[in-house]
Amino acid sequence: MNKRKVNISELAAMVDGEWRGEDVAVDGLADLAGAGAGQLAYIDDIRKMTAAAECSASALIVPLDAGQLSLPVIKVSDPAWAATVIHHHLLHQDFVDAGIDPKAVVGEGCSIAGAVAVAPLVVIGDRVELGHRVEIRAGVVIGADVKIGSDVLLHPNVTILDGSVIGDRVIIHSGAVVGSDGFGYAHDRAGRHLKKPHVGYVQVDDDVEIGANVCVDRGTFGRTWIKRGTKIDNLVQIAHNVEIGEDSIIVSQSGIAGSTTLGNGVIMGGKVAVNGHLKIGNRVTMAGKAGVMNDQEDGAVVAGFPAFSHRKWLRAAALFQKLPDLAKEVRELRKKLQELSEKKSADK
Amino acid sequence: MNKRKVNISELAAMVDGEWRGEDVAVDGLADLAGAGAGQLAYIDDIRKMTAAAECSASALIVPLDAGQLSLPVIKVSDPAWAATVIHHHLLHQDFVDAGIDPKAVVGEGCSIAGAVAVAPLVVIGDRVELGHRVEIRAGVVIGADVKIGSDVLLHPNVTILDGSVIGDRVIIHSGAVVGSDGFGYAHDRAGRHLKKPHVGYVQVDDDVEIGANVCVDRGTFGRTWIKRGTKIDNLVQIAHNVEIGEDSIIVSQSGIAGSTTLGNGVIMGGKVAVNGHLKIGNRVTMAGKAGVMNDQEDGAVVAGFPAFSHRKWLRAAALFQKLPDLAKEVRELRKKLQELSEKKSADK
Amino acid sequence: MNKRKVNISELAAMVDGEWRGEDVAVDGLADLAGAGAGQLAYIDDIRKMTAAAECSASALIVPLDAGQLSLPVIKVSDPAWAATVIHHHLLHQDFVDAGIDPKAVVGEGCSIAGAVAVAPLVVIGDRVELGHRVEIRAGVVIGADVKIGSDVLLHPNVTILDGSVIGDRVIIHSGAVVGSDGFGYAHDRAGRHLKKPHVGYVQVDDDVEIGANVCVDRGTFGRTWIKRGTKIDNLVQIAHNVEIGEDSIIVSQSGIAGSTTLGNGVIMGGKVAVNGHLKIGNRVTMAGKAGVMNDQEDGAVVAGFPAFSHRKWLRAAALFQKLPDLAKEVRELRKKLQELSEKKSADK
Repeated sequence: MNKRKVNISELAAMVDGEWRGEDVAVDGLADLAGAGAGQLAYIDDIRKMTAAAECSASALIVPLDAGQLSLPVIKVSDPAWAATVIHHHLLHQDFVDAGIDPKAVVGEGCSIAGAVAVAPLVVIGDRVELGHRVEIRAGVVIGADVKIGSDVLLHPNVTILDGSVIGDRVIIHSGAVVGSDGFGYAHDRAGRHLKKPHVGYVQVDDDVEIGANVCVDRGTFGRTWIKRGTKIDNLVQIAHNVEIGEDSIIVSQSGIAGSTTLGNGVIMGGKVAVNGHLKIGNRVTMAGKAGVMNDQEDGAVVAGFPAFSHRKWLRAAALFQKLPDLAKEVRELRKKLQELSEKKSADK
Repeated sequence: MNKRKVNISELAAMVDGEWRGEDVAVDGLADLAGAGAGQLAYIDDIRKMTAAAECSASALIVPLDAGQLSLPVIKVSDPAWAATVIHHHLLHQDFVDAGIDPKAVVGEGCSIAGAVAVAPLVVIGDRVELGHRVEIRAGVVIGADVKIGSDVLLHPNVTILDGSVIGDRVIIHSGAVVGSDGFGYAHDRAGRHLKKPHVGYVQVDDDVEIGANVCVDRGTFGRTWIKRGTKIDNLVQIAHNVEIGEDSIIVSQSGIAGSTTLGNGVIMGGKVAVNGHLKIGNRVTMAGKAGVMNDQEDGAVVAGFPAFSHRKWLRAAALFQKLPDLAKEVRELRKKLQELSEKKSADK
Repeated sequence: MNKRKVNISELAAMVDGEWRGEDVAVDGLADLAGAGAGQLAYIDDIRKMTAAAECSASALIVPLDAGQLSLPVIKVSDPAWAATVIHHHLLHQDFVDAGIDPKAVVGEGCSIAGAVAVAPLVVIGDRVELGHRVEIRAGVVIGADVKIGSDVLLHPNVTILDGSVIGDRVIIHSGAVVGSDGFGYAHDRAGRHLKKPHVGYVQVDDDVEIGANVCVDRGTFGRTWIKRGTKIDNLVQIAHNVEIGEDSIIVSQSGIAGSTTLGNGVIMGGKVAVNGHLKIGNRVTMAGKAGVMNDQEDGAVVAGFPAFSHRKWLRAAALFQKLPDLAKEVRELRKKLQELSEKKSADK
């Protein structure tokens, strides 16, 4: 991989920052401890200035309120964001039109818009549409009638099942499954489960990222829908007909049951469970391990199981640990009350 | 896919229903909102009659107590079940004997009973037996000495490891792993873990469905056994030597630890954990997120962690939220009791 | 598979045991119920002596304090450990240098130290290094610049992404993903998430075992590091930059958030969640379903959420079930106190 060297003056301009010191060129970005000569690092808090002063980076991205350093700096209002933009710029590689490897298997009637890089041992079904600059790594299996946008990256061993619709700039990590059947059964009189056919599909909009070994079930009818900009961590379960709004964050091992709708800007911590057929509003935050059993209004912050106000949960959870003390106190109160009551009777 | 058009009189006869209105032909089934001309929809509750009256379906499956509609209807005692039976009938395609794709790899000594459809880039080990009408999609890997029954569907990128026994009409979804080693170690004096060999196997009986990215570990010795008709949702963990009875339902992200036995008709909600070496009776229901630490009698309904009676859990969980109020009340009682006690002393 | 027959005198010598009775030869080991002629079984507790006396094994491994049996025995201080050592010996097969299957795809510049067994439909990237006796089963995808030690076993459909470093005697089960991107984003002013590039890697040290469908994310910068002898069960999530010490045990469906460090000999029960940026000491035990939100000192034993002392948690959890009783008692105390208080006033 050829690294590009870029002057900090140029990088500062990209992020509306100001540069100070020598206009050095850098070709990479690392964390404060790991950055060496020729690399940028960043601090997002001036409490890290001491560590910053001792680092081996060639230049630093710092907050606007940072004091003077002997190193060249780029001053910005949001160092984490600026570092990310700059890092992407430094890592950027032009897409290599590797085409379709002869050891990949492509079905009939497929439509490929432009440059693609399809690795060996990829299987693409019939009537699949691929946009521009799609990279499909080894072991990926794509079913029939799948539509994939441009600038999409499918990591190794991803499975995209029939009829899925994938937007632009989507990244899907290894082992993820998009479009498996939902978990729905009718039951006969003997209590046997009869599988409901799942004839719906999955729609994944632009700029979504789906983590490793995530499962997204197709709609029973209609679609399961993950909207623009939402990011999903590893091992998450998205059931049939779920809708997830834009710019949401779903942390690892969470699960959303069937037909639940999430708004925009929702945050689910790790291992959260959301029951089926709920309506979760915009900008709702669900703390890690929450079990959400009810609809949630816009902006709600909930925790616990069944989930309720996070603020109240913190107090309740603190008292849970002290339940033995509370129980002891109640026993003592009872005893004292008994004594007082008896003394009173004796007084008469 | 060629669609079949079937008259509702014929469909009604399949599900012991009665039809009313014009004997229209339909070629598909959808939900009430999505069904269009030429399609059936269904309602399972007469409270949906208003919506039903406005739908665009060509005919409806309705409960016996449904009033009159302008649309042709099929009246049945269980619309969800009838709709599922009819939907399968409408979707039915004869199995296409596609054979074994030349880009699949098949080991030595395999036995294939009849028509199969083995996709490219499937790997089948030595001495594997396949029944009739087995469909194995791309990227599936089957180990040695695996037996697979008839009418089985293995979705892409499934892994079935050596010695597994799979019954008839089993469906396994993408990314599922059947037959991985159990998690068992001996420990030496230095605290190092020495892997126990896992020489058992997995047996999956008829009509079982296994979700995407599920893990079913093989027995340490003997078998891990999933019995007839049990349905397992995505991302579930089934440890070594677990036995799951017939017609059970295990919702997503649940886990069952080693050597636990579940009866027939058990229901596990999402994210349930069941400890190892337990005996869970028939028709036990474990609510979502339960952590089951003890044996459960037939018909038990449990929740919470450690799991206890669901009915009692509902009350305890409601009180958990009010712990701050309870603690406050105890403080006030103590104070009042103190005052009363002091007043009493002062009175003397 | 040819079975080897070994005399119990020889096996006893391997595990510092003493043998009694006839010096029979065995070729396998099974559990007490399943062992037949020609096989060993073991009991780890003399309470199982009655069952042992009735078993069909040809010989038994028993604790030192076991009484006399009619069967030949090997007496050892730790039967579970001895049985495991002996079982490995009986199962041992010399590595077969099957080489690289012509249907595997190997990149450029790879370095292979010695005998390997690479199955069909494996894809190995550029500049990969393999040690001695590496077995890579079908469907495995290995990225570029990966280093793999000796005596490593990669089960079918494992994914190892670019730059990962795998030690000796590592076992990775099907569907596991090593080296996926961490879940980290910067946020712009509009609340949109901008993916942080993940340029770190994963290091897996000697004797580690990684379960099926586990996810191990690469470091954002630097490494995610799993140290020697640690064993990880199925469906576990290891986030970016996590460090796990030696000889630790992580049970199924647990998750560790980013940048957390675990010491040596840590035990995580099933479904445990550990928050990010924590320091978990040596020999910490986290009970199943715990949610760990704080640093933990060496040897701590914690449970619950937020996790605290396991001993205290047991008492608190028992009281949780009795919350309705406690609340009732408080109501009664309030009533009695009220009566007493009123009576007192009336007395005046």
